[in-house]
Amino acid sequence: MSHSYRLVVSCPDQVGIVARVSGFIAQQGGSITEASQHSDLEAGRFFMRYEILADSVGMTAEALRTAFEPVAREFDMQWALTDTARRARVVLMVSRESHCLVDLLYRWQAEELPCDIVAVISNHENLRSLTEWHGIPYYHVPVDPADKQAAFATVQDTIETLNADCVVLARYMQILPPALCERYVGKVINIHHSFLPSFAGAKPYHQAFERGVKLIGATCHYVTQELDAGPIIEQDIHRVSHCHTPTDLVRFGRDVEKAVLARGLRWHLEDRVLIHGNKTVVFS
Amino acid sequence: MSHSYRLVVSCPDQVGIVARVSGFIAQQGGSITEASQHSDLEAGRFFMRYEILADSVGMTAEALRTAFEPVAREFDMQWALTDTARRARVVLMVSRESHCLVDLLYRWQAEELPCDIVAVISNHENLRSLTEWHGIPYYHVPVDPADKQAAFATVQDTIETLNADCVVLARYMQILPPALCERYVGKVINIHHSFLPSFAGAKPYHQAFERGVKLIGATCHYVTQELDAGPIIEQDIHRVSHCHTPTDLVRFGRDVEKAVLARGLRWHLEDRVLIHGNKTVVFS
Amino acid sequence: MSHSYRLVVSCPDQVGIVARVSGFIAQQGGSITEASQHSDLEAGRFFMRYEILADSVGMTAEALRTAFEPVAREFDMQWALTDTARRARVVLMVSRESHCLVDLLYRWQAEELPCDIVAVISNHENLRSLTEWHGIPYYHVPVDPADKQAAFATVQDTIETLNADCVVLARYMQILPPALCERYVGKVINIHHSFLPSFAGAKPYHQAFERGVKLIGATCHYVTQELDAGPIIEQDIHRVSHCHTPTDLVRFGRDVEKAVLARGLRWHLEDRVLIHGNKTVVFS
Amino acid sequence: MSHSYRLVVSCPDQVGIVARVSGFIAQQGGSITEASQHSDLEAGRFFMRYEILADSVGMTAEALRTAFEPVAREFDMQWALTDTARRARVVLMVSRESHCLVDLLYRWQAEELPCDIVAVISNHENLRSLTEWHGIPYYHVPVDPADKQAAFATVQDTIETLNADCVVLARYMQILPPALCERYVGKVINIHHSFLPSFAGAKPYHQAFERGVKLIGATCHYVTQELDAGPIIEQDIHRVSHCHTPTDLVRFGRDVEKAVLARGLRWHLEDRVLIHGNKTVVFS
Repeated sequence: MSHSYRLVVSCPDQVGIVARVSGFIAQQGGSITEASQHSDLEAGRFFMRYEILADSVGMTAEALRTAFEPVAREFDMQWALTDTARRARVVLMVSRESHCLVDLLYRWQAEELPCDIVAVISNHENLRSLTEWHGIPYYHVPVDPADKQAAFATVQDTIETLNADCVVLARYMQILPPALCERYVGKVINIHHSFLPSFAGAKPYHQAFERGVKLIGATCHYVTQELDAGPIIEQDIHRVSHCHTPTDLVRFGRDVEKAVLARGLRWHLEDRVLIHGNKTVVFS
Repeated sequence: MSHSYRLVVSCPDQVGIVARVSGFIAQQGGSITEASQHSDLEAGRFFMRYEILADSVGMTAEALRTAFEPVAREFDMQWALTDTARRARVVLMVSRESHCLVDLLYRWQAEELPCDIVAVISNHENLRSLTEWHGIPYYHVPVDPADKQAAFATVQDTIETLNADCVVLARYMQILPPALCERYVGKVINIHHSFLPSFAGAKPYHQAFERGVKLIGATCHYVTQELDAGPIIEQDIHRVSHCHTPTDLVRFGRDVEKAVLARGLRWHLEDRVLIHGNKTVVFS
Repeated sequence: MSHSYRLVVSCPDQVGIVARVSGFIAQQGGSITEASQHSDLEAGRFFMRYEILADSVGMTAEALRTAFEPVAREFDMQWALTDTARRARVVLMVSRESHCLVDLLYRWQAEELPCDIVAVISNHENLRSLTEWHGIPYYHVPVDPADKQAAFATVQDTIETLNADCVVLARYMQILPPALCERYVGKVINIHHSFLPSFAGAKPYHQAFERGVKLIGATCHYVTQELDAGPIIEQDIHRVSHCHTPTDLVRFGRDVEKAVLARGLRWHLEDRVLIHGNKTVVFS
Repeated sequence: MSHSYRLVVSCPDQVGIVARVSGFIAQQGGSITEASQHSDLEAGRFFMRYEILADSVGMTAEALRTAFEPVAREFDMQWALTDTARRARVVLMVSRESHCLVDLLYRWQAEELPCDIVAVISNHENLRSLTEWHGIPYYHVPVDPADKQAAFATVQDTIETLNADCVVLARYMQILPPALCERYVGKVINIHHSFLPSFAGAKPYHQAFERGVKLIGATCHYVTQELDAGPIIEQDIHRVSHCHTPTDLVRFGRDVEKAVLARGLRWHLEDRVLIHGNKTVVFS
């Protein structure tokens, strides 16, 4: 199957960026199959994402990067050029609950997620069999409340050794230490089981039940040092009523969490999410 | 057209309530067209709402109330029996923005809202012509920041004189004084332009924009002394993206606000909303 | 854990049904935890569903049925009284596609579906490993286009031998013969991958793509002899745009199908779906 | 307020279109505030829409069109360049029902719809007062079933005289004659009160009720000679249940119709809808 190059750019807005970039690509004979732009008029910043048929260019990703470098410098761009032939290496982290894991493993098998899932890390043992049935290594890293640092050192070692591009907290119920958040900024994706900023912190469904809201939600976001406050990638909701107990809310919530995390992760893996400050541009 | 009686009950849960109430109604020959019950197992409280064809009973609402009194006492009920032949008297309060007013007036004309709108009260003049075109009296009660008390005294007088059953804050941008909230508890409905409890207080769409949420919402709730914290009747959301400016959020929000307020008000007028502590049971 | 009895009734509407039934239950000391009624005024038919704490009654389901028999006769009821202690026996039928199977098996494991899945029957071999990993027997019944009758005889034998209460066509791409539909009327649930009645028949997503619709959907319905025309239990949709290829529609569709089938099946298993002619009453 | 130019293009796909067009705009100093592209890989067709700050170009729309002509010819483009300073002239056509009219007039007043509403044409008199209160001329053109041709000749004259750019059938319950459809192809927008292609033709809500669907919908589409079969611009749905009568479906439907028509019309007026065969590309 033919692969594509993805060019993702963010830079100060000015006249002529699209002309310069699309002119460069046309010069290489590049056939653009998908193009998205966004001008944030308030912030004066420009964002773009091009998907280019690799075969039309006749150049490796590396060579294309070198050729593009002067254009990038000219416009002071933050940019990346990825090759879909190189699949991202993803580590999933889970605790006891399996719904997000089951869902992501299904989607990965069904080729909905363009990545290699290289490991599942958990502070529990219970999801080993499921994970290994899918042919994926399972790392049990218990978190001793008295010495969390040791656990997270092991986690970090594992991520480094596996050379992971992306870490997904698929209902991993531990808070990552700031140093880890800092090290993988823009690479750790979490699913929070509330419609943030409502009900940040623990037991959001019980908080929602107590408040008597008529909709519950879930939020997929990048992890930052401030708990549940990172850039939001995707959110969705489920309607509830007085009939529903906290148990029902948890059940509905699982469905929303799965869906929201899967969409957010897919967009991240397809280089559709551009972070800008504490917000995201999502070319979905 | 034939009218109905609506019996709405809330009481401590115990065996035999439905049998006793439905037995009572059957004794009077009452034909039940709609019946809803809810047992809050945690709170140990029971809620019910019956809609009964008035003609099948052959008794005035007043007589039926008297006959039901012993049953109500037996089960320690909070209850009401209303007659759909008597339409609720509603006062709408607005500031400058017209979207909720236009929507409610349309629905009232289209017979979607079973009530008489007896007045519109506003702290501005700009919606007088629209209101009066619908044949509804318009009261301009300016709110002097230096003496809000005077304005709210006039508001209260107007409500009392009009003998209103329900007051709708249809984007009335003033905070009602605690005494007024207290006086009409369970009778004042507000539309808040955020998905509460997110973004309580002022300028919620701008708060939402700053946080970069992917969904915005609106909340219809009963007004209590604590700002934006009363029992929630209904909520809904609208999807937004990085493309949308605060102006777009305001525009989308207007549509959600209209829809949520109209649903909440309709349910209130149809005696479908039972308040229990800071939550609601909505037999929608 | 305590179990419940579920009383489900449909009968000609008349005054006094609720009083009679709830009176009967109160006589037995029955504590009703959930009660739903519906009067179809046009059809003159009444529907109800009660959930009763078994321990409060102090009688077996069988004894309660005998005691209720005279009431049922009096009102010409179609009725059933089930005991949640007896879990329904469900057979899943699939072809090659796994998404609905994966989803249902997860929900079954997570105790979201109150049933025993006693077998998976497929005309293909590819989902055996997945099924058996869950500890469920897998029956491979190939369908020879030249002699479908033989295959369906085997299918029917299997269902009979397993004493199944419910058969779920979880993307089983074969059309059941009329005799089979007739034999298990109201017991076979199908998921159709379109928003019926749009795009009945084969390849609905491609039909939807050709028509340029902006929403695609899925429909969970009881199977009847007329293809894709049985009583609808549940439907839902997913938004699409010009960006999406038929492949994308199939992908989105999988998510809708899973969700709609799971909801429909759960409601069926909880005795929340009452069939009336070609329509359903769903006490969800 | 500053105005914009909108360049909308559709042409056979090939390498270099974006480079050529964006290069042309950059040459004129044009500042692009919004850019959308779509490659229909199956049809081999390319679509684009640029929004350009008029002041940044320093040329009239007419001059810019002349300058762009060679580029358009080079790529065999269907194209248009509009100036937001020139507001589209819109004619609304209605029958008795007011919900879409009330909604569109509100949005027009609230500046949500960038157009001039130059007239309302109706085959009834009942919406005259509402229309004229908004300061818009009302033309009563009764349709005599025995001589519809006469009425539609008057309608056409009126549209021509008013020099209308767009005609909106805002629940106009008459079928336009083929000649009229042909004359204004791509300029007449209809709201159909069902989720097409389900329930085309008359009384769709009653059809939906009979079929027992769990969702009802509405469809905004361009009018073509084949009834209810033109290119779809937008659709949406509302959930219904066994509780709801045909009257309820009509009521819910009104809300969906209003919302769907308003979105579709707004996108049309903002040049966001490109027709391709019987489908649309909507850069919403």
